[in-house]
Amino acid sequence: MKIRVGIVGISGYAGLELIGLMMRHPALELVAAMDAREIGEKPVQEIHPRLRGICDLVTFPPDDKRLGSLGLDTVFLCTPDKVSLELAPHFLSQGLRIVDFSGAFRLKEAASYPSWYGFQHGNPGLLREAVYGLPEWNAEEIAGARLIANPGCYPTSVVLAILPLIRAGMLEPGSDVFCDSKSGVTGAGRGVKQELMFSEVMENFRAYSPVSHRHAPEMCQELGWDPDRFTFVPHLLPLNRGILSTIYVLFRRTVSPAEMESEYRERYSRHPFVRILGGSRLPELRAVNYTNCCDIGWRLTQGGRRAVIFSAIDNLVKGASGQAIQNFNLMHALEESAGLL
Amino acid sequence: MKIRVGIVGISGYAGLELIGLMMRHPALELVAAMDAREIGEKPVQEIHPRLRGICDLVTFPPDDKRLGSLGLDTVFLCTPDKVSLELAPHFLSQGLRIVDFSGAFRLKEAASYPSWYGFQHGNPGLLREAVYGLPEWNAEEIAGARLIANPGCYPTSVVLAILPLIRAGMLEPGSDVFCDSKSGVTGAGRGVKQELMFSEVMENFRAYSPVSHRHAPEMCQELGWDPDRFTFVPHLLPLNRGILSTIYVLFRRTVSPAEMESEYRERYSRHPFVRILGGSRLPELRAVNYTNCCDIGWRLTQGGRRAVIFSAIDNLVKGASGQAIQNFNLMHALEESAGLL
Amino acid sequence: MKIRVGIVGISGYAGLELIGLMMRHPALELVAAMDAREIGEKPVQEIHPRLRGICDLVTFPPDDKRLGSLGLDTVFLCTPDKVSLELAPHFLSQGLRIVDFSGAFRLKEAASYPSWYGFQHGNPGLLREAVYGLPEWNAEEIAGARLIANPGCYPTSVVLAILPLIRAGMLEPGSDVFCDSKSGVTGAGRGVKQELMFSEVMENFRAYSPVSHRHAPEMCQELGWDPDRFTFVPHLLPLNRGILSTIYVLFRRTVSPAEMESEYRERYSRHPFVRILGGSRLPELRAVNYTNCCDIGWRLTQGGRRAVIFSAIDNLVKGASGQAIQNFNLMHALEESAGLL
Amino acid sequence: MKIRVGIVGISGYAGLELIGLMMRHPALELVAAMDAREIGEKPVQEIHPRLRGICDLVTFPPDDKRLGSLGLDTVFLCTPDKVSLELAPHFLSQGLRIVDFSGAFRLKEAASYPSWYGFQHGNPGLLREAVYGLPEWNAEEIAGARLIANPGCYPTSVVLAILPLIRAGMLEPGSDVFCDSKSGVTGAGRGVKQELMFSEVMENFRAYSPVSHRHAPEMCQELGWDPDRFTFVPHLLPLNRGILSTIYVLFRRTVSPAEMESEYRERYSRHPFVRILGGSRLPELRAVNYTNCCDIGWRLTQGGRRAVIFSAIDNLVKGASGQAIQNFNLMHALEESAGLL
Repeated sequence: MKIRVGIVGISGYAGLELIGLMMRHPALELVAAMDAREIGEKPVQEIHPRLRGICDLVTFPPDDKRLGSLGLDTVFLCTPDKVSLELAPHFLSQGLRIVDFSGAFRLKEAASYPSWYGFQHGNPGLLREAVYGLPEWNAEEIAGARLIANPGCYPTSVVLAILPLIRAGMLEPGSDVFCDSKSGVTGAGRGVKQELMFSEVMENFRAYSPVSHRHAPEMCQELGWDPDRFTFVPHLLPLNRGILSTIYVLFRRTVSPAEMESEYRERYSRHPFVRILGGSRLPELRAVNYTNCCDIGWRLTQGGRRAVIFSAIDNLVKGASGQAIQNFNLMHALEESAGLL
Repeated sequence: MKIRVGIVGISGYAGLELIGLMMRHPALELVAAMDAREIGEKPVQEIHPRLRGICDLVTFPPDDKRLGSLGLDTVFLCTPDKVSLELAPHFLSQGLRIVDFSGAFRLKEAASYPSWYGFQHGNPGLLREAVYGLPEWNAEEIAGARLIANPGCYPTSVVLAILPLIRAGMLEPGSDVFCDSKSGVTGAGRGVKQELMFSEVMENFRAYSPVSHRHAPEMCQELGWDPDRFTFVPHLLPLNRGILSTIYVLFRRTVSPAEMESEYRERYSRHPFVRILGGSRLPELRAVNYTNCCDIGWRLTQGGRRAVIFSAIDNLVKGASGQAIQNFNLMHALEESAGLL
Repeated sequence: MKIRVGIVGISGYAGLELIGLMMRHPALELVAAMDAREIGEKPVQEIHPRLRGICDLVTFPPDDKRLGSLGLDTVFLCTPDKVSLELAPHFLSQGLRIVDFSGAFRLKEAASYPSWYGFQHGNPGLLREAVYGLPEWNAEEIAGARLIANPGCYPTSVVLAILPLIRAGMLEPGSDVFCDSKSGVTGAGRGVKQELMFSEVMENFRAYSPVSHRHAPEMCQELGWDPDRFTFVPHLLPLNRGILSTIYVLFRRTVSPAEMESEYRERYSRHPFVRILGGSRLPELRAVNYTNCCDIGWRLTQGGRRAVIFSAIDNLVKGASGQAIQNFNLMHALEESAGLL
Repeated sequence: MKIRVGIVGISGYAGLELIGLMMRHPALELVAAMDAREIGEKPVQEIHPRLRGICDLVTFPPDDKRLGSLGLDTVFLCTPDKVSLELAPHFLSQGLRIVDFSGAFRLKEAASYPSWYGFQHGNPGLLREAVYGLPEWNAEEIAGARLIANPGCYPTSVVLAILPLIRAGMLEPGSDVFCDSKSGVTGAGRGVKQELMFSEVMENFRAYSPVSHRHAPEMCQELGWDPDRFTFVPHLLPLNRGILSTIYVLFRRTVSPAEMESEYRERYSRHPFVRILGGSRLPELRAVNYTNCCDIGWRLTQGGRRAVIFSAIDNLVKGASGQAIQNFNLMHALEESAGLL
């Protein structure tokens, strides 16, 4: 018997990716495609022509009564922050478990929401309960969670890359960490905006929201790093998928290449989706796109006193839908990589 | 009477761009298209179909006797480092002036060549004589030069962006400078290499030669910054043209937004090709591509103790052929922007 | 004394391209940047960051009184069909000459407008007066025109390619002509639409409006070909600029390669912007992009009874703004290529 | 027990795609990665960084003795034509079954090879035995075959699109069929060539090998259409994956929209990978990329006497590796779609 799940918010890129992954998953069955926007009852395959002949579901609103009769176990929320904030208690009260793609439950402090997200967070209890769904670091809590805050795409790439160094006490306390991240356009969602039109992006490249992107506080929280010594600058790549983060750090003492490599390898030895490149290899998007992997490489400089850390992920897979499935697998004691190869 | 010029090395992207610019220049006439490779006598328009009906020249080798009878004044060398090193004295001895696109005359120290360029530099006298052709900083020396070392594309973007801060004494002495640069593929030249094939680059992104690119010593030399506190990481963008550099610096004291803006505006007030964006504007490639402009913007962080500086250029224009024309204009007391609008 | 001109509709891609070309033109001065949309008084360089430091004009509405005092000679209308239809009589009555980029004056039959353009055309007199601005075929009428209907981008590429064969009586009367055209995304304008978002177009390719595109009647009119034997299928390329048309035709008799080449070369021998490739050469976008050229090549098949004709243009230059300047030059007895090299 | 298979030629894009598909296949196990080029013993994951941690195989040459001990059932040849021609008898004689990606066994007439492939075909017996592996048309023969000639990418897109019309006798006998096909760059293989360099392809578009591409005779053979009335013009798209074919045909009588749709739907009703769009829908690459589907749509013109047929496939999946797996599934009486969702 497969575990029956639903999705709210199927019309975006993360929703499409998630449905595609679910179609291949051996132990999960998608039985409800909901959409909170005004699209009414619409065949999923008309919204996403890629799913023609593959997914027969028709959308319905998340407050529809039929929900109760579908035998759902888990709902994936691919919805905007405020919609997730509203829907989550509603579904939890029906005994469902939730994997939420938005930022609504990622920050521990309700007080951070007004300045970073532009709204008051009325549910600090759920903030405390929600588990940050980064499986390589929080597997145990994820297994028992009712509500998973699926990490942001940029934080996934940055936290996986440098948290091992921070936990090992290798970074100079109070030193600057500079994160220069570059993302494909699907990371910006499927909303219709002038600045994301093809001819505005193609053969173009630029930074956006430098030092004020809302993924910055999420990174500092998970890294345990002083926001005043943390600079995050995202850039928009003229491509569809993938994030490459280039991170500049300062060590408290000289670090050798061998130490670097063993630190990373040990930390992630039992985690199939983090691949430590080592040696002279560098991550690149095409090696991780359409996979759930995060590739990590580095260069030591200044005789081992500084390092440049590189990490690459597919923002729609490890940065969103693949990680959501990985969390789902852990929540249900399935093989961590089920449906993700 | 137009000034008669020649080019050696017309088959690459910089050569094509340079010919295109020359065709529009009001005071310059291209009369010799030379190539040091084994292409023999070949119509330029067969090498570059874009120039059909526009350029009637036929290539000949740079050691051809006809050179003497052409009344040349200046030769532009779009040649590899070692070819430039060999050709420059040859042309200078004939009384010609030179604008060299390669790295052969950019570093002041002959001793730097073996490690960074892989060859012994046999002509330290010319290294001393050569003028680094960054017009916004060296206009006077350029005017009187026989031999111009046209700057590298990355150094152009980085030096224009942060030299004002360094000269003004604003950076913390001995602090780290991190340059995260991203370049289009024409910057890698037109050589045929597996890693530059379309399907290896499209929908891909990666760093290359991190902390070991040969443009790093050129930047440190021009900036007067300690190479041990300077980290340069170039990346390859899946697009044809343009360089965006994101540079992380640390101030010795708190800097105000107004101070930042006035420092930049004053420094470049008489330089039409450097555009100071100011306010909340950020550089982007499409605003500078196909122009000779360098756009500069920034964000202050940590209450004005740190800054992220952004600069954008077209690597083939301001980063190569346009800057070469700008140098030529200064060498001949022409309007600095002649042929460059 | 330069000829003073104005533009209405500066916020799109054709407007930007046109301003760029005007900045370089030796005999024309842009003195009025108007916009019919609700953008009010706005510096052109805020709308198009590329023009920073290059164009100092501020927009104003086309019905502004200051227009009369500017000494304008010609107005370029980069406006939607219905706006052009309304503005043209207004400007003509002030004694101005007009180059109109829209379809408002391209079709000779007012009766064609409701079905192809969706509106009644209330000014058949101007339809009769308007000259179809394809300089290689209508130079004489253009020279004396008050109102130029600047051709559509697709029709420019198709008419230049096969009108020589039709006029020479080479095509089988009543035979099918199949035009398979492919255009870059700027051809669709700068309007904000879901289907033109970056992630909908990148790594994608599709036909659109097959056999029902409004450029089809314009082509049939200029070619004098039966619309029932003319099939036009446009496609959307994942690139910014350029149109390549592949056209399949049937000859009434066997045609030799030499005849083909001489027919084309003779027809266009005095037209610098049409380049006949001949031999085995084929047009490609990168050879024409950023130029005002149309490249034409072909293959004979079936022993010379059929041919495939290829033509390439830059949709923003020869397909719009460059051709408008070319028309302007002819209207003012300037060198045809002034400002276009 | 999984069926044990090997691949020869793993270093190209089809090889990479095939390995990826095999990793997910429930009934197949890849146990041998061979390469006929001089790469010696090399970990597959060094050739394809995407396969890091996913595929542990090390390459060996196809004539290596260890082959005999691996218990192979089927070998997939992703090799050049002449290598396949040589290897096929070698493997068949060892009792192995073969799916060959090259053109070595696609044409029935040995006499066609010198002019289209440039070599004498020394094995007409195998040409007779080989089954053309288009599962939607030849399922029965595929089931019993020892040697499958996996179809070319362009022929897959064209034959699936118009063979139903030809078999139903709808086309005018002796009329012209014009195929205007557009392919992504991976279709050209991974060989290193100047004209496939990133900066030669990006923002470019062109036809290549018009009316002389070697896939033309393969199409005519499978369609049963007179090569003198068949024109095939392939074009190179600036994207990685996908083929869209636009095909112009003439009917012998008037065809209604309903007839068109029912003809297609009936023909392919039991074939999950051919999707008939019908109505006003048009195929596009992003709906088929990374799937094994072929999408077919059309427009009737001239009152139903002509039609434009559109088909879209992913050249690496349905046009190569996915179709090979589909053939493998049929050969082994597995579910046709095993491993392909």
